Amino acid sequence: MTQPFVPAKRTIMTPGPVEAEPRVLRAMSTPILGQFDPLFTSIMNDVMEDLRRVFQTSNHWAFPIDGTSRSGLEAVLCSIIHPGDKVLVPVFGRFGQLLTEIAERYGAEVFTMECEWGTVFEPAEVIDEIERIQPHIAAAVHGETSTGCLQPLQEIGRCCRDMGSLFVVDAVASLGGTDVKVDEWYIDAAIAGTQKCLSVPSGMAPITYNERVEQVVNARKKVERGIATAEDELEKRKQPPIASNYFDLSQLQDYWSPRRLNHHTEATSMLYGLQEGIRIVLEEGLADRFKRHRFHEQALRAGLQAMGLSLYADHDAKLPMVTCVNIPANVDGNAIRHLMLEQFGVEIAASFGPLKGKIWRIGTMGYSCRRENVLFTLSALEAALLSHHVPIYAGHAVQKALEVYQRNTEGVQKS
Amino acid sequence: MTQPFVPAKRTIMTPGPVEAEPRVLRAMSTPILGQFDPLFTSIMNDVMEDLRRVFQTSNHWAFPIDGTSRSGLEAVLCSIIHPGDKVLVPVFGRFGQLLTEIAERYGAEVFTMECEWGTVFEPAEVIDEIERIQPHIAAAVHGETSTGCLQPLQEIGRCCRDMGSLFVVDAVASLGGTDVKVDEWYIDAAIAGTQKCLSVPSGMAPITYNERVEQVVNARKKVERGIATAEDELEKRKQPPIASNYFDLSQLQDYWSPRRLNHHTEATSMLYGLQEGIRIVLEEGLADRFKRHRFHEQALRAGLQAMGLSLYADHDAKLPMVTCVNIPANVDGNAIRHLMLEQFGVEIAASFGPLKGKIWRIGTMGYSCRRENVLFTLSALEAALLSHHVPIYAGHAVQKALEVYQRNTEGVQKS
Repeated sequence: MTQPFVPAKRTIMTPGPVEAEPRVLRAMSTPILGQFDPLFTSIMNDVMEDLRRVFQTSNHWAFPIDGTSRSGLEAVLCSIIHPGDKVLVPVFGRFGQLLTEIAERYGAEVFTMECEWGTVFEPAEVIDEIERIQPHIAAAVHGETSTGCLQPLQEIGRCCRDMGSLFVVDAVASLGGTDVKVDEWYIDAAIAGTQKCLSVPSGMAPITYNERVEQVVNARKKVERGIATAEDELEKRKQPPIASNYFDLSQLQDYWSPRRLNHHTEATSMLYGLQEGIRIVLEEGLADRFKRHRFHEQALRAGLQAMGLSLYADHDAKLPMVTCVNIPANVDGNAIRHLMLEQFGVEIAASFGPLKGKIWRIGTMGYSCRRENVLFTLSALEAALLSHHVPIYAGHAVQKALEVYQRNTEGVQKS
Repeated sequence: MTQPFVPAKRTIMTPGPVEAEPRVLRAMSTPILGQFDPLFTSIMNDVMEDLRRVFQTSNHWAFPIDGTSRSGLEAVLCSIIHPGDKVLVPVFGRFGQLLTEIAERYGAEVFTMECEWGTVFEPAEVIDEIERIQPHIAAAVHGETSTGCLQPLQEIGRCCRDMGSLFVVDAVASLGGTDVKVDEWYIDAAIAGTQKCLSVPSGMAPITYNERVEQVVNARKKVERGIATAEDELEKRKQPPIASNYFDLSQLQDYWSPRRLNHHTEATSMLYGLQEGIRIVLEEGLADRFKRHRFHEQALRAGLQAMGLSLYADHDAKLPMVTCVNIPANVDGNAIRHLMLEQFGVEIAASFGPLKGKIWRIGTMGYSCRRENVLFTLSALEAALLSHHVPIYAGHAVQKALEVYQRNTEGVQKS
């Protein structure tokens, strides 16, 4: 048998998963309830209510998919894509490509437009494409962790609404860290993850969607043999059912509503964790929480630049919760990361595809977005670089970050 | 904001979810590690190794799908079904129907054979159908919780191997409670759940499969844009990719192997829970654990029958971990269950489809399969029936179960 697991304590500064809130971990160790226990179904209702507030929406539907973030993307896309539907994806990093991968598998005719990694689209460019292609669905990433960029969405959403396209947004990296205004930005469906700015372990994907999406979903509704009533059997579908059973939002709606029609067995402990995680977000308050994320980002950037490092994607559309750093010439980025992890227990991230070996990605998300974490990260990175004889300004980074913190002891409460 | 959650302590005697092992809950509250942290990837490897032992297999592939039990069923079925493939499903309850639902959605030509709910198939009947239909895949439920029956599988597996059909088994209810001999029974792919006999909260679906399945999966392999190397791009697929991205076993293999190619972010805390849960199973020992399940089932049955209740599906193929009880005539089964839950905190289950309102289902699974739980359940059920003026033999049930326990204090250690 394998040896018992003795956990190491890490400082996790990747763009996810990040450190889980201690209160969330405590909630997850609570003894479980049965899935149809009224105490449990009332938790399900509470989670829906709190999720609506985090998504800034009045949508009825707001609940988690039981799977990691991309399970939420797939649940929404496969429930609304009919084979042959035109789907437009503006791609500005790896997770835009993921949207095309999923849409293609469900038979969509996928149209992409690309901009250079490290930049975002002018909304007008995307609007032009929407008007030209007239897609059934436009799907966009909000916070692209592969490049550390944040795509402005409101004008694109408005255009989709005018054109009758459904607007689907991957808010996995942004929810809980910066505004995701589902209603105000005309987003028809938004998908989040737990392991980033919500600081809940990976394993659930909160989603929300409006009546426009619900209508598409309901037209494909099918109740399973074995639990369907005679009435269900009589109900004629106009369209073939959704391609996936697990991700079928029409079935999930019956489970997340008073009918409580058995679909899966809700992931009890994950739901406890999600409930506590969202509660912490709402207790802190959205505005204060977003301000805190901006504040620690400033300290981190100041420190990195004082060290002499340059930032990748350092512009107005930078994602506040992910800071990408250009790896200096002739430096083995992975060796630096490994030294940081092995000697300091500090984890930062490598990167994907065309950026592999070119940038490090440092997250300041949720519970990991704390003063001591930023200071530890700067210390460890500086030490690792010096240990590899990389020419940097020694001793400046932490001092610069401290200045930011000492200058602003008042403004931010929970920092 | 909603009020803080104060958990109630329940005695959960449904066929799942059941009470989680306290050690599992503690493991789940451990601070998380990053997904590519060597400490975490070594946990992934340990889980694979321990899962092989629980599945009694030498298969290389044994890992969890990040989703509830049916996510594992869907991952296996969608990864091996090509549209038009013939899939044979012997249906003897609701979860057999679920297999047909999933297979149909992925374009299979589904053939079913049915026997009366509450019975199982003679292997020879199924073998006849396999020989007649020559399906690409035969998919069967092992432990059918909707009826409390256990289908013998070995001869069917042998026939599939001879015929060149893939044999897929839903072992969600059986793994960890009774033998699931993957190799000896010629099972090509088996799927389990966490929230039943493993006593881990719902949210993961451990699967295992052999080289025959791997071959089918590899022929459909596709590496995602954004992380694919030039070499990956060159690799020519002979067949179209798997319909789902999230459930694509070829991608999951790259994540669960030294390449560690990013697919999802593994559900950290659930994996800690699964690791601890399987470790507990192996510490107890499979044979002792199965014996314990049989032992408490005997006590429960003795008690129920002493009360004057009759069992549904009381024959050689009864599932040892689920005991179905005929609801006496003119008794409102739900009213009895609600009284048990509200007054005693004891939860037993209702039933599905044609059995709705006709039977109660009582689980004796994993950590819930304990002496005091069986005694509490009998006490609560008797009291609820008496409170509803149902004519039963009062005072006999618990005494009869106690007799079983006192007669056998030695044989079983962890009871």
